[in-house]
Amino acid sequence: MTKQNTKNNAEILCIGTELLLGNIVNSNARWISEELSYIGLEHYQQIVIGDNIERIQKTIIDASKRCRFLIVTGGLGPTPDDLTTEAIASVFKSELKERKEIWIEIQAKLRANGHSPSPSNRKQALMPKEALVIPNPIGTAPGIIWSPLPDFTILTFPGVPSEMKRMWKETAVDWLKSNTNNTQILLSKVLKFTGISESKLAELLEDLMNKKNPTLAPYAGLGEVKLRITAMSETKEKGINLITPLITEIVKRTGETLFGFDEESLSSVVLKLLRQRNETICIAESCTGGGLGASLASIPGASDMFLGGVIAYNNSVKRNLLKVPSQLIQEHGAVSKQVVTAMAEGARKVFGADWAIAITGIAGPGGGTKQKPLGLVYLALTSCEGTKISQLKFDKAKDRQVIQQLSVLRALNLLRLSLISRS
Amino acid sequence: MTKQNTKNNAEILCIGTELLLGNIVNSNARWISEELSYIGLEHYQQIVIGDNIERIQKTIIDASKRCRFLIVTGGLGPTPDDLTTEAIASVFKSELKERKEIWIEIQAKLRANGHSPSPSNRKQALMPKEALVIPNPIGTAPGIIWSPLPDFTILTFPGVPSEMKRMWKETAVDWLKSNTNNTQILLSKVLKFTGISESKLAELLEDLMNKKNPTLAPYAGLGEVKLRITAMSETKEKGINLITPLITEIVKRTGETLFGFDEESLSSVVLKLLRQRNETICIAESCTGGGLGASLASIPGASDMFLGGVIAYNNSVKRNLLKVPSQLIQEHGAVSKQVVTAMAEGARKVFGADWAIAITGIAGPGGGTKQKPLGLVYLALTSCEGTKISQLKFDKAKDRQVIQQLSVLRALNLLRLSLISRS
Repeated sequence: MTKQNTKNNAEILCIGTELLLGNIVNSNARWISEELSYIGLEHYQQIVIGDNIERIQKTIIDASKRCRFLIVTGGLGPTPDDLTTEAIASVFKSELKERKEIWIEIQAKLRANGHSPSPSNRKQALMPKEALVIPNPIGTAPGIIWSPLPDFTILTFPGVPSEMKRMWKETAVDWLKSNTNNTQILLSKVLKFTGISESKLAELLEDLMNKKNPTLAPYAGLGEVKLRITAMSETKEKGINLITPLITEIVKRTGETLFGFDEESLSSVVLKLLRQRNETICIAESCTGGGLGASLASIPGASDMFLGGVIAYNNSVKRNLLKVPSQLIQEHGAVSKQVVTAMAEGARKVFGADWAIAITGIAGPGGGTKQKPLGLVYLALTSCEGTKISQLKFDKAKDRQVIQQLSVLRALNLLRLSLISRS
Repeated sequence: MTKQNTKNNAEILCIGTELLLGNIVNSNARWISEELSYIGLEHYQQIVIGDNIERIQKTIIDASKRCRFLIVTGGLGPTPDDLTTEAIASVFKSELKERKEIWIEIQAKLRANGHSPSPSNRKQALMPKEALVIPNPIGTAPGIIWSPLPDFTILTFPGVPSEMKRMWKETAVDWLKSNTNNTQILLSKVLKFTGISESKLAELLEDLMNKKNPTLAPYAGLGEVKLRITAMSETKEKGINLITPLITEIVKRTGETLFGFDEESLSSVVLKLLRQRNETICIAESCTGGGLGASLASIPGASDMFLGGVIAYNNSVKRNLLKVPSQLIQEHGAVSKQVVTAMAEGARKVFGADWAIAITGIAGPGGGTKQKPLGLVYLALTSCEGTKISQLKFDKAKDRQVIQQLSVLRALNLLRLSLISRS
């Protein structure tokens, strides 16, 4: 036997001049990094290079000496500056062959979207002949899994994040899991919190965070903090036995700030709670302009609980559709406790829902005054038990879209807290 | 004289295990990339590595052979895993010396923020003795500008974006400008298209895409294709003179598929067109649940044109608020040309707007039938001139959120095309 294969690490190579020019942020590298850590694949380096064939070739040769798996994104499109597959094949002296079935599929997809296939699309069906294909269910650029050397495998993905993610989840991740030398398996669970800062959470869990197995890693997102618990063990059962008591302890310490697990979001949790109680919800949005509705509607099956809403951007809409008295708006202004209450109560009547949420505020950049500064937002939640109001004051340095998104999350959380306190 | 200095390119090296774990997105690399392109410094590669001294040393040695300027972020903090300065000094066999004035400044800053200086903070005052200092006006981690080799300079910055940016703008950028051999500047413009595939666009512009200056680079996003034009020239005026006729030619060839430039989006363009005509818009959304409204509302000043809308998820809402006749829904179903028309026309009356857009469809994953399959979406656009209907059939492999987002973009484009055809 020859020297044992000792490399078992991954590197990420993102190809695209748009990344080097700073046109887009490299969100793919972040997403893949997180996925690699879930699988437990070690990952020491990421590289970004442009659409230049010599540099792509050189980088692949160097990477083949350092890593077991090279995850490549970008450069799979139909245009002349899409060079990834060509560069890989030339480095390892493999010929590109057209896969007939892929070319047929590409043409069908283009036609389904109302485009006529062009000769340049044909390039996307060319692959090294030994490569496995990573099907692309939503685009025309399939990827490959190819091991040109015994201890080196390249996986390619398009740069479009939605396509890359689908291909990763549906094909690549299982292949990677079953082709690593890991005798230990990693089991991981993500806990999601809201209404608590990352540093406060870290303080509450300080003693647990020093443990070696399972490990705890918190990180802050917009309006939420995620905590990833990762256990390493020989079997899934042992992993579960390591994680379960830890979760019980964390739940005890963090109380109602813990809102969900893994892929759950505030909207999915709220809809799940409503479904359990067979209750319905409607909304009235001003400064968020539909963002709360879109957040609920993004969850499959939302229509069972979510009846609809009114986007009451203009005051006439508040009066006509939500029956907010003109006098209230004149006396207190559209951004006030009185008006947000009338919006929620009006919506609940109009839609005949069990719950109604209303949002009104000043998302900026214009529209702030001394009495009603930029970043002032009111939320109201109403049900047969009455109305709760919440006043939010966002830092005026936050931009419009952040204020809108945070307002939506706070509104969902207001409903969540009411639902769990009653169950 | 010895061999002339021929390297004149920059590389970016971001140091931090949090980047490799996917805890944060590498926004620093994007920001610095954009800055480098403004200065016209060529930039072929970015690397991300973790807090590991051997890998940092190896990466710096390799980079010193490839690039003239190495821009390093991260690893300047006070904790043991902050290794950047130490690694740089050891590679080039320089001793680290404490800069007294920096240590005094660090202590003063910590005290001003209510912290007492700890011995570990003292590390942040250590620098190679020949290095220039990049002052950090808002944090305790200054950076360095150091040329350990005649044709290689390292610039270091903390990983905290706000500190890095201030230090770049106040010190580094001027130093770089006056120390490059660059007589050329880069000017770039992004054109945005919809309703055309990346490959079709590349075909239309094939002859232009082969030019060396300006260069053209297309890339596909969700529902749009971007085309970046980049010109290199001695002055900004000459750059504009290179780009302007090219844009004119592209506009001629691509017609109404070109919707905007640089930071513009379909929503911002549609709102700009409405503002120019002093016209208003309202919406009625079913399967997108508020996404169209949120997209419009994300643009500052939207409230001048966007009156509001109805999220008519449930059929009772279509009947009660949008006055869609029950009979139409019974006869044709909620997802039909007849109902989408009634939704748009109903909304336009209720809101008294110049324009109304309605969306109804089956975003899935459930709810599809043989007659009305998953991915079937109807759009209607109505104004005083009548109603236009558009039927979309999305590939059923697309997921719910993608179908919702694409439906919103197609609806905005329907309005855009009507607005430009009338102007």
